[in-house]
Amino acid sequence: MLPFARITIIGLGLIGSSIARAVQATMPTVRLTGHDADPQVRARARELGFCDDVTDTAGASVVDADFVILCVPVGAMAAVGAEIADDLPAEAIVSDVGSSKESVLVALRSALRDGAVIIPAHPVAGTENSGPDAGFATLFNGRWCIVTPPEGSDPTAAERVAEFWRRIGANVEMMDPKHHDLVLAVTSHLPHLIAYTIVGTASDMEEVTQSEVIKYSAGGFRDFTRIAASDPTMWRDVFLNNKDAVLEMLQRFTEDLTALQRAIRWGDGDALFDLFTRTRAVRRSIIEQGQDDAAPDFGRSH
Amino acid sequence: MLPFARITIIGLGLIGSSIARAVQATMPTVRLTGHDADPQVRARARELGFCDDVTDTAGASVVDADFVILCVPVGAMAAVGAEIADDLPAEAIVSDVGSSKESVLVALRSALRDGAVIIPAHPVAGTENSGPDAGFATLFNGRWCIVTPPEGSDPTAAERVAEFWRRIGANVEMMDPKHHDLVLAVTSHLPHLIAYTIVGTASDMEEVTQSEVIKYSAGGFRDFTRIAASDPTMWRDVFLNNKDAVLEMLQRFTEDLTALQRAIRWGDGDALFDLFTRTRAVRRSIIEQGQDDAAPDFGRSH
Repeated sequence: MLPFARITIIGLGLIGSSIARAVQATMPTVRLTGHDADPQVRARARELGFCDDVTDTAGASVVDADFVILCVPVGAMAAVGAEIADDLPAEAIVSDVGSSKESVLVALRSALRDGAVIIPAHPVAGTENSGPDAGFATLFNGRWCIVTPPEGSDPTAAERVAEFWRRIGANVEMMDPKHHDLVLAVTSHLPHLIAYTIVGTASDMEEVTQSEVIKYSAGGFRDFTRIAASDPTMWRDVFLNNKDAVLEMLQRFTEDLTALQRAIRWGDGDALFDLFTRTRAVRRSIIEQGQDDAAPDFGRSH
Repeated sequence: MLPFARITIIGLGLIGSSIARAVQATMPTVRLTGHDADPQVRARARELGFCDDVTDTAGASVVDADFVILCVPVGAMAAVGAEIADDLPAEAIVSDVGSSKESVLVALRSALRDGAVIIPAHPVAGTENSGPDAGFATLFNGRWCIVTPPEGSDPTAAERVAEFWRRIGANVEMMDPKHHDLVLAVTSHLPHLIAYTIVGTASDMEEVTQSEVIKYSAGGFRDFTRIAASDPTMWRDVFLNNKDAVLEMLQRFTEDLTALQRAIRWGDGDALFDLFTRTRAVRRSIIEQGQDDAAPDFGRSH
């Protein structure tokens, strides 16, 4: 038994179009409807053919859906919720893929009718590319999807959402939305913030030219530029919607960086060596648990 | 005409063993001698066979060399220089691959005899792996090698070193040592410092477990763990030997991070969006100039 028969995806960028492609590949009998606010994206989605139908309005896309996944920036959830509220079937489950979960729950609860079934979720997967051409069916293979059912929600609904994600290749974990936001602040939001900052810092030098920064980026800098090339709207919204957890993590990071700065200034080689040895072990665990490529240099070609 | 006929490599880790393999592949008539301070590395190097001869002392490795490359941590340059000083032929060129160049020049000048020909160099290439098994012949293909001849040195010597690096696949740039140290502080040392810090910060959480950090690392964190898995001794030495430039860059980074923190706290979405758009362009340039893989997600398998 498939968890859903008529799925609607709103937002046909990297994540939305990857879900659509993955559903086509793993659940071909599902009827897939798509919508995107951008007419050019809708036109391109029709050409690419990863949905059975692409509608011109959000409301029209949900009228006979049993599962609606909002794949839009977290700052747009309230507006999209309002657009679909009147057309949403009462028994349909509404979910999303946003990177902050408490804010999305609040936004959808206020936008949708009382009694709407809301089961937020977050697949921890992606690439630095955006748009309907960037998606691919295997994006979620072996990655984790965190499902964050609100307190008091129907466990069957959460389980159907979990089963959906397993079918398209993901591992699933259930989590409290607040804890999700703290975990992702560490594993995703802080790294993006740091990456954006260092790429900005390096671009603003007077003594070192932009051309030098680019030429010698293989010394380490280029690793940061990948996630600093992620979608600006999506990331602006993440930081504004998970503010408290991000600021908390940033505070800890800054303290640790200050301690390291002090160790360098005072020539405390042992402090540096101890940290650098400890961090090596974290990398090993990530590879052992299949969350990164074991090939050196991320498997880049040489 | 080959630039050198009898090359000695001291330090047979990732970089030293990659140079040896690259020389074997591109200049098979060159006689290659190797040495490493660690008897286990010497034994392994003999098994792997990437040198014609591996000697038990540093002095013995240089007696008939016309080119000696020191591939040891920058903090070990002075000691290795002292070990080879008495056996080094007067006409041999001594070079290195260290990530800081002013400190290496000072160390080698004081360790070697007056008149020794010293042409420091730095190939901006590597992986997170260490040791003689980690090396490979194509590591320097398309990467930049920065040659930093001291003021007043013989241009012919610098040109021979440059030609050597071109032969094994690198592009070569000549640069003043001081400027090198500033450029690399931005493109390599600061990124490593930031990566080590964030991996440390994430490991020290109380509210988020180590296991959660690893499971959800595909959200961005895992990108930082690669360079934070680099050799601890090498990197301790880099920070202690390029202290001023690293502290200067760190100061700028911290200012920029504070500005971003403020933008998040006050909900200044436009400031975030502007930076995130600007950083995207830097990534594009790096790919256009062949300094990173154009494939999404560094070409990781999905």
